[in-house]
Amino acid sequence: MEDDIYLSYLFRPKSIAVIGVSKTPGKMGYEILTNIVRYGFQGPIFPVNPKYKEIHDIRCYKTILDITDDIDLAILVSPIERIPKILGELKAKGVKVAVVISGRRGDLSSLPIVELARKYGIKILGPSSMGIFHAGSKLNAALGPLSVIEGSVGLIMESRTLGMALMGLTTVEGIGLSAVVGLGDKLDINESDILDFLMRDRSTRSILMHLEKINDPESLIDILKNSINSKPVVILSSASDVREKLESFDGYIPIVDDVEQALDLVLVMAGKRIKGNRVLIVTNSGGAGKLITGLSNQTKIKLSRPSEDLIDQIRQFVPEGGICSSNPIDITGRAGTDIYRGILDVVLSSDDFDGIIAIYCETALSDPLRLASMFYELWELYEKPIIPVMMGGEKSKEAVLQLRRKGIPAYSSPCRAMRAIDSLIKISSFSNQ
Amino acid sequence: MEDDIYLSYLFRPKSIAVIGVSKTPGKMGYEILTNIVRYGFQGPIFPVNPKYKEIHDIRCYKTILDITDDIDLAILVSPIERIPKILGELKAKGVKVAVVISGRRGDLSSLPIVELARKYGIKILGPSSMGIFHAGSKLNAALGPLSVIEGSVGLIMESRTLGMALMGLTTVEGIGLSAVVGLGDKLDINESDILDFLMRDRSTRSILMHLEKINDPESLIDILKNSINSKPVVILSSASDVREKLESFDGYIPIVDDVEQALDLVLVMAGKRIKGNRVLIVTNSGGAGKLITGLSNQTKIKLSRPSEDLIDQIRQFVPEGGICSSNPIDITGRAGTDIYRGILDVVLSSDDFDGIIAIYCETALSDPLRLASMFYELWELYEKPIIPVMMGGEKSKEAVLQLRRKGIPAYSSPCRAMRAIDSLIKISSFSNQ
Repeated sequence: MEDDIYLSYLFRPKSIAVIGVSKTPGKMGYEILTNIVRYGFQGPIFPVNPKYKEIHDIRCYKTILDITDDIDLAILVSPIERIPKILGELKAKGVKVAVVISGRRGDLSSLPIVELARKYGIKILGPSSMGIFHAGSKLNAALGPLSVIEGSVGLIMESRTLGMALMGLTTVEGIGLSAVVGLGDKLDINESDILDFLMRDRSTRSILMHLEKINDPESLIDILKNSINSKPVVILSSASDVREKLESFDGYIPIVDDVEQALDLVLVMAGKRIKGNRVLIVTNSGGAGKLITGLSNQTKIKLSRPSEDLIDQIRQFVPEGGICSSNPIDITGRAGTDIYRGILDVVLSSDDFDGIIAIYCETALSDPLRLASMFYELWELYEKPIIPVMMGGEKSKEAVLQLRRKGIPAYSSPCRAMRAIDSLIKISSFSNQ
Repeated sequence: MEDDIYLSYLFRPKSIAVIGVSKTPGKMGYEILTNIVRYGFQGPIFPVNPKYKEIHDIRCYKTILDITDDIDLAILVSPIERIPKILGELKAKGVKVAVVISGRRGDLSSLPIVELARKYGIKILGPSSMGIFHAGSKLNAALGPLSVIEGSVGLIMESRTLGMALMGLTTVEGIGLSAVVGLGDKLDINESDILDFLMRDRSTRSILMHLEKINDPESLIDILKNSINSKPVVILSSASDVREKLESFDGYIPIVDDVEQALDLVLVMAGKRIKGNRVLIVTNSGGAGKLITGLSNQTKIKLSRPSEDLIDQIRQFVPEGGICSSNPIDITGRAGTDIYRGILDVVLSSDDFDGIIAIYCETALSDPLRLASMFYELWELYEKPIIPVMMGGEKSKEAVLQLRRKGIPAYSSPCRAMRAIDSLIKISSFSNQ
């Protein structure tokens, strides 16, 4: 356990030094300090650069040694050649962990960074890390957007630039983040160390991990085996090596090469578990229902017919011309929020199905935002997952985003929902093993 | 050719009667009339409903027979039971083509609609059609959004509700439309009639067709064989019957069941052709480059190394730490617009590659909107296609939308771009046969 103290300093520092700050927007030393300050970090922040007296109205220090207070976490943005010297100063200050933003991935030159860090007892994240974000600590020390949706998805990114873009994409896709960690070159702290921590981090409910290689396959497989039943993981990778090393999970852990799909899956996994594979589709478009049904053959999803008893209960809500004895249930384009609500209540209370996909194609008859509020209510009310699909113009888009920002796995296309629930079934069946 | 006159009335009417209008928002008879009026149709509009004297400040007629002017196109929104009687009145007025919005798809009751229409010499689109939109005629007689991005993609939709949602989705996804046609039950006018017309419609450059069944496979295959070299078609369907009937195209025509993918593909096909499969990837993120490279094995895309000569020309632009002798070319996270521009100019002028995927992961160093303007310039300047991938937060999203609205196939994830260019290569190789 003592080993882990550095992780507390990393994720929950009480004070931060940023070494190599800059006043030039666009430069990493500007962007990262600005994010830390503006995101509202609560403890003291110590910028270091001999050129400045102050930056963002905060006193700027000539060297690390000029700082008299304790430093829990050091963020290093100076040119990579200076890192060895800086490590020496960090040791003198008693700093236990440093995030090295500097450096180009793969280009580890011949600097004795790890050797020195080990000698000095300093743990290193990086080099070429994108930094660290932890919502619970109001800590945004990442090269990425300033404004982040806070939520329960953890991101672990090996690539710095891809990580920045992906973190940006979460704001556009409505994905709430609990933590972001840039692994960079993983010279010291590796994927298993961070995964292990996030597995125990209570604000994180599912994890997306970008990997190009695995430093410590044994530890990683161990952690995954022990923990993915409580906290699912999605791997973003196209490296055959990563795929081979994780093949013992036999599809239970999704390994995808599409960033949007990765976000879709980690979103559904941050929500509820599903107890089985019996899924009912309710749709206001027969055409959308048919599209999605074809896809189910390639998944573990079982679209069985509702029981006679359930059909009897559903029938009262289905408008004329609808179909209630099949799966999908077709409630026709004239269905408004009340019809969805009536049917969903009945199905969520029954034992026939383990989850629901509710497809809504935008019509002038019903307000997507009102429908979204209803989906949210049902999500809170019942144990079983309901996956809303809301397809249409700006209003539907906004409805999907509103739901996502609350942690509800809503999608803008039936296919995306289908793939998501399929992954959820797989990971849940791993838990049930 | 005489046969086709009804199609001119359908797509380019000089006057429209809307039978069964309503003053209640949400009702089809309100929505469709409102779209026609507000979208700015240039000719006379004749609403018909005995209950009203006027609607939207336009005189409303008791019956069709009260209209003294000629009617090129009749839009029927009255209850389906009244359609036979209305057809009789349309015949008396000499109307040649009617769009039947009314009705539930598949529920054709026992009304002699087609029989009467044939007897009266009236062509019927529908029943249960979502209506018709034709940008060139300022005609928005569709159940769908009022505001549409005008462009060069034609949509042919069998399902009414799915069609409405998909038309809405084009506004969110930045896809410009030339025409939308709701086939509905296809009792009379079928998929081949409409496809044939759009193949000859100069404002349409590619076509997305939603099909659950094919009424006239022989005609459809004939049209596709003769025309997809000049105007590509994407099929949205999960019906095995549709797949089987089109299997002679052996993958040249994409048949997809994902609405977003369908839009992605029809967008790239509305742009430029590609002469071969040699694609160069330029990326500011090595990580993103690696993700996309893995995917290329499942496609027809050939990622060959640039020639020594080309490498020499590229080298001058690549920042320190970048890689210019491979594919992808890694220009590092520090690359700004000028670096992209320099390299793209050189590659687009060379004979080494047939197309480029330019990946940009959002960084604080470069402005996505400025980059988008540059991509647009290059798109206009060179014959070869350049497919921008811009991934990040709101600015990148907006950049992608700006490009898309101008008809440039830009994407927010490398995978989506890869699938799009793969489809483009396939369809282009069909043309080259």
